[in-house]
Amino acid sequence: MKIAVLGSGHGGVAMSADLALSGYDVSLAAVEEHSVNIKLLRSLDGIKIEGFTSSGKTPQFTKPKVITEDVPFVLKDADIIMVIVPSFAQSVYTDLIIKHGKINALVLFPCGGFSALEFRNKLKILNRENDFIACETSSFIYTTKITGPGKVLIKGIKDNVYFAAAPSERTGEALSVINQIYPQFKKVHNVWQTSFSNPSAVLHTIPTLLNMSRIEQMGPYRYSHYDITPCIGKIMEAVDRERVEIAKHLFPNPPSFLETMCKIYNLQAENIYQAVKSVNAYNIQFSPDGMKHRYVTEDIPYSLVPIATIGKELGIDTHNMDAVINIACMANGENYWLTGRNAQKIGFEAKPKIKTENLVLAL
Amino acid sequence: MKIAVLGSGHGGVAMSADLALSGYDVSLAAVEEHSVNIKLLRSLDGIKIEGFTSSGKTPQFTKPKVITEDVPFVLKDADIIMVIVPSFAQSVYTDLIIKHGKINALVLFPCGGFSALEFRNKLKILNRENDFIACETSSFIYTTKITGPGKVLIKGIKDNVYFAAAPSERTGEALSVINQIYPQFKKVHNVWQTSFSNPSAVLHTIPTLLNMSRIEQMGPYRYSHYDITPCIGKIMEAVDRERVEIAKHLFPNPPSFLETMCKIYNLQAENIYQAVKSVNAYNIQFSPDGMKHRYVTEDIPYSLVPIATIGKELGIDTHNMDAVINIACMANGENYWLTGRNAQKIGFEAKPKIKTENLVLAL
Repeated sequence: MKIAVLGSGHGGVAMSADLALSGYDVSLAAVEEHSVNIKLLRSLDGIKIEGFTSSGKTPQFTKPKVITEDVPFVLKDADIIMVIVPSFAQSVYTDLIIKHGKINALVLFPCGGFSALEFRNKLKILNRENDFIACETSSFIYTTKITGPGKVLIKGIKDNVYFAAAPSERTGEALSVINQIYPQFKKVHNVWQTSFSNPSAVLHTIPTLLNMSRIEQMGPYRYSHYDITPCIGKIMEAVDRERVEIAKHLFPNPPSFLETMCKIYNLQAENIYQAVKSVNAYNIQFSPDGMKHRYVTEDIPYSLVPIATIGKELGIDTHNMDAVINIACMANGENYWLTGRNAQKIGFEAKPKIKTENLVLAL
Repeated sequence: MKIAVLGSGHGGVAMSADLALSGYDVSLAAVEEHSVNIKLLRSLDGIKIEGFTSSGKTPQFTKPKVITEDVPFVLKDADIIMVIVPSFAQSVYTDLIIKHGKINALVLFPCGGFSALEFRNKLKILNRENDFIACETSSFIYTTKITGPGKVLIKGIKDNVYFAAAPSERTGEALSVINQIYPQFKKVHNVWQTSFSNPSAVLHTIPTLLNMSRIEQMGPYRYSHYDITPCIGKIMEAVDRERVEIAKHLFPNPPSFLETMCKIYNLQAENIYQAVKSVNAYNIQFSPDGMKHRYVTEDIPYSLVPIATIGKELGIDTHNMDAVINIACMANGENYWLTGRNAQKIGFEAKPKIKTENLVLAL
């Protein structure tokens, strides 16, 4: 079983090193324009892991079989393709997968964000929807950090990560393969659930936008609990109610953000403000450095825009979500409704057609 | 000529004292529920003015002819009625004016906010639209502050204050009376212009909402220039473009917020961020104390809501304004579209009817 890990950021480096240490036949590849780290790792002839490993082996210097800028080369015989790049960089890789990937390879997107759906929509348009198994987890299994040249710290490996394939009928088949590597992956209903379960859509965007003045003046500054306040919590709740209404059409019993937080962190809290303030892991954080931070430029176009535009297709009122998205559009002078992963890009159209509003607002 | 000043806040106290010192027959009145200051001033038997006076007389202890909670009593023979109360408190006074006011009295609202239009709409509904002359200035002529029991500081008296009556055909008639008292009032096209010229709709709301985290944690704190940042400036510009598009339908050549700032403060600035940062008067300020501050609870429902709902009646896209209003609605759990001074309350309906969206969104 050959594994290709695509992407040379901390996630791809950590995953490829950890899997190599576990004994898998793994290659690490990134396209030329993102290959600075690839060149470095090749010159160092490997990667030093610190912290944890999924095999339980002592963290050590290790070496993926291949470290290369030649993405097509590693794709041609990979059985599992891990796409470990930010959402906005995915399309260059998915184009290469479609062109060079081995038929029936399993293609995993690790952080929700409606990535598997967009990939599958690309395949559908080409009439090749059965050529690959598109899979998604709700969040990246590793918590990692680059600590120096060629060094990656694996701070943690999550226990329980939602997993689904698109179409969901293939989730079992995909899981029987991937569970050999990651037994932590748990089957859920579908890739709607993996994408809707990522808390970033609410947790990253709203506290960042409503702290715009201080973040632009001082960021990155040391803060805690996202510097959430009671009114910010109320806004998160109003937006989350819309998210849950939409999710109800896509998988059964979607939990609210508050319920999710209380479950993950084993909390008792009456509202989002209390819940976020109660998470010890949020005690020490650094704020974003400005409005071009991924909490805005990734989580708005790749989390909130797909959710809101799906809502509009379903005829669900999303005016609270729209407000948050439009604040981000104005701040950055970008029409995220168009540049983001909207319902059209993931091939979502309500049947029967009940939409009542224009999908795309002029900026 | 008898003048009734309604309202016992710093504005009403300053105006009634200044006019009394000028020698006018002036009464100060406030309804029982806002009468703490009235009782105090009556017990002190007058008001001590500090700072400036409009007559040029030495600031001194002075006494309006009547200081009372009996609003109907002062209304029955007042030729000029000054409504010096916050927007949300106006309706109790306008109801009393309609019931007890002398026919043909001039009723002045001093801070825009579509107050004259709402008053006139009330009169229209009662078929009494010619019983009073509804007038409005764009901003309050005095800059004032209460400095102690019975003491008011007049920090400044503005030079050039926009004035209009509704209907605008009566502006000349009204001005011939009011200019005897305030020669600083200058005729403009109509009360649309006085209401649209108040900069609060943009200047107060957006920097406050987008500084929510810090204001809720620390407010009131000492800040400067509204703690505006470049992205906040861009949001103000996006909202202001919509405001100007709407204003173009209501009076000729509406200036942008940036043009207004540059003119008032004699600045050269390329954008709103630069302009606001250049105003020396904004060097030392105190931030709002929270999201219930009038920068949100008055300027959203009485400035932005009327503008946005008029825009919708005119078929103009207001999605940027809507975003700001909806953030305020979510933060305070109040549907300002309904509780605020919407187009319906000021009797505005586009002819021909070209509106395409629902006026009121459910919260």
